[in-house]
Amino acid sequence: LERFVVTTTVLDLAAGTSVLGSEDIPGCHPATCRIGLLGLGNVGSAFARLAREASSSLASRGFTPVVATALVRSVTRERSAQLSAQITDDHETFFAEPVDVIVEALGGVEPAYTLVRRALDRGIPVVTANKSLIAAHGDELARLARRRGTALRYEAACIAGVPFLGTFERRSLVARASGVTAILNGTSNYILTTMTRGGSFEAALADAQRLGYAEPDPSMDVSGADAAEKLTILIRLFGRLLVDPAAIPLDGLASVEADDIAAAAAFDGAIRPVSRAAWDGTAIRAHVGPAFLTGTHALARVAGVTNGVVIDAERGAQCYIGPGAGPDVTAATLLDDVSEIVTERRVRTPPSDAVSAATAVTRPDSAWFLRLTGTARPSDIADLLGSYGIWCTRLERRGDRVYALTCHAGQARIHTALDAVQAATGAAAAAFPALAEEAQS
Amino acid sequence: LERFVVTTTVLDLAAGTSVLGSEDIPGCHPATCRIGLLGLGNVGSAFARLAREASSSLASRGFTPVVATALVRSVTRERSAQLSAQITDDHETFFAEPVDVIVEALGGVEPAYTLVRRALDRGIPVVTANKSLIAAHGDELARLARRRGTALRYEAACIAGVPFLGTFERRSLVARASGVTAILNGTSNYILTTMTRGGSFEAALADAQRLGYAEPDPSMDVSGADAAEKLTILIRLFGRLLVDPAAIPLDGLASVEADDIAAAAAFDGAIRPVSRAAWDGTAIRAHVGPAFLTGTHALARVAGVTNGVVIDAERGAQCYIGPGAGPDVTAATLLDDVSEIVTERRVRTPPSDAVSAATAVTRPDSAWFLRLTGTARPSDIADLLGSYGIWCTRLERRGDRVYALTCHAGQARIHTALDAVQAATGAAAAAFPALAEEAQS
Repeated sequence: LERFVVTTTVLDLAAGTSVLGSEDIPGCHPATCRIGLLGLGNVGSAFARLAREASSSLASRGFTPVVATALVRSVTRERSAQLSAQITDDHETFFAEPVDVIVEALGGVEPAYTLVRRALDRGIPVVTANKSLIAAHGDELARLARRRGTALRYEAACIAGVPFLGTFERRSLVARASGVTAILNGTSNYILTTMTRGGSFEAALADAQRLGYAEPDPSMDVSGADAAEKLTILIRLFGRLLVDPAAIPLDGLASVEADDIAAAAAFDGAIRPVSRAAWDGTAIRAHVGPAFLTGTHALARVAGVTNGVVIDAERGAQCYIGPGAGPDVTAATLLDDVSEIVTERRVRTPPSDAVSAATAVTRPDSAWFLRLTGTARPSDIADLLGSYGIWCTRLERRGDRVYALTCHAGQARIHTALDAVQAATGAAAAAFPALAEEAQS
Repeated sequence: LERFVVTTTVLDLAAGTSVLGSEDIPGCHPATCRIGLLGLGNVGSAFARLAREASSSLASRGFTPVVATALVRSVTRERSAQLSAQITDDHETFFAEPVDVIVEALGGVEPAYTLVRRALDRGIPVVTANKSLIAAHGDELARLARRRGTALRYEAACIAGVPFLGTFERRSLVARASGVTAILNGTSNYILTTMTRGGSFEAALADAQRLGYAEPDPSMDVSGADAAEKLTILIRLFGRLLVDPAAIPLDGLASVEADDIAAAAAFDGAIRPVSRAAWDGTAIRAHVGPAFLTGTHALARVAGVTNGVVIDAERGAQCYIGPGAGPDVTAATLLDDVSEIVTERRVRTPPSDAVSAATAVTRPDSAWFLRLTGTARPSDIADLLGSYGIWCTRLERRGDRVYALTCHAGQARIHTALDAVQAATGAAAAAFPALAEEAQS
């Protein structure tokens, strides 16, 4: 591959033409793809590094990625990426540099939204890993990209290492689905997996922070807010419904105790940070929070920072599992997005079916995994729950707690029944949704 | 959607232009995509039916699929699909009709190869579900398509209902992998799953034939030859190596007995029809045949006609599971391929990294799941195996058989040891590769 050298040949993607297509001509020079990079944090630096390292392997695809300019919040901060690019904190200076693709790695809604809109409006293709931006403005930005005949790609915004969003966007028949169940936050899943080996929530979180999985402020991860943003991206793609992430009911991870994890294993299952949604017309049932998965569930063994999604597609359930996050995985997905845009030459955001605003977001019914603390006899608890129509398929005392798996019921009825149990016996309760096998026939 | 009507607007994909791109213009008419259909068997008929049924939903993507002409082996056979298209058994008549895309659903290498080559050579994009064709000529046909600036898509050729081949073709960084492990034949997996509920291989096969999963001649399915063709497609995509399907070592399904299935369950695993390959330079280790999967393996619970693949990717294992076959699933994937080609306007086969010919294909080493028939004492069997360096991690008598799980070993050593056991004790043996968890960290 050494015969490929960087030339000054440039793409002109914005105008819908390109010099690419030379991969079958031996000895030809790959075109330079000039990248404008927004952000040089963990992800942006990893992207700049990978663009340099992967340039010889991408030469066989007909292009060489070169970061031509980078916009940062502060030019005085030291950067880990050794960039020959112009680095600026000024929007006008950044946009004055001609580029073929803009890669957004700032995170957060602003200033990413303003900058991405400006790029698309000029017909410059944009690749982003920003779930907050896409959750808040994805539909509007995709429409803008289509109107301008350019591309908006955000494969890394949801299960960063598994390419499936773009695939399903392009393929409307397989994307017909009635719901999704997913593990969308690697930090949360790492915490619950670590707790399987004993130890508290707090210790597992500290561990995740030490390893760089969790942000210094992990509240978006452990509250479920990060997963809720990703879930709304899936709801738009598979349900063609727009929903505000803030409308999704969340349960945080902190309610999970080490004993709950051990009890779940004894009940042949596992507690996982689950995001799920199902839709009927414009009504959505959705929830993000720790849930009990039976051992046969397709996601029950998804461990550590691995993520996964089960899509309840019309022609059979599909399951996709792989790396969920991390700067290197995210950078590779961003660069694969760039590669697709460059090699497809005439770039465009795929047409999408009409989306509607969701009219209602409510919690789904489910079976439940219950923890009751106290000395009440299991048989008394079962009788009390039964008087509210909550039947237990399994109920066992473990130390100073009673754990139970119940029949299918709405959350309101479960809470009413648990309040009655507490009033009668003093037993404090926690209830986690319990999900059975779904993916595989 | 009723306001969309079929118009006589046509695409001209071969010339690289198109009238599409109208999805943002309310009330505009979708363009007709004229399809030339090769074959009107189960898959071809299902495709013709789906093209009719899905036309209103595809109108929102800017096109209406219309089967304009169909080539069949015999025009006198009655067809289930009510087609208004020209139906002919003459190649010249078929190619005289102007079409935008050709969909190949003949199966088998010839005449599919001749017809697909002729279409691509004319610059007409081709969509096919034909794993035999792609296994034998995929690389050559993809090169022809690229030279002619047109598209060749074959998403349905491997795990028909799960779109991943095209995705990984377009994305070279995520496609860097060292191996794959997969369940690629729905009929075989249906048979082994059915045997879990008791009953013989023959009864399960008859069941699969009655339900239409198995062909009247199921030999390609149960011998592993069908899976081997699909495995070579995966080896080309992920390993960039060309290999003849006939070079892949096969074990047929018929060696699996109902007692083996029950013993595998007692050993906390399952027997599944597994295709696997790993590569190092141009040397491949590959095998297709029944294998023992530990219960924690990502594919252990893939049941019935569902298929799945674990990709040992550089940045973390990926797992994809979903519908493997069936006329309706295959037809939907073919039509999604057509939809991608039409809506991307400037169609082209993605560039690929250079492929090399595989220099060697040998069986991979593995742990083994052994069945020994006879009255020999388990401890004697363990001692004999141990004298050949085969250590058993578990060994149990079940009725008139002894089952064992062994350490990692090459097939030659296992067979030498089993021959020695048979010579010493009269115990006839069968050995299945045993694979442990791979997919999820």
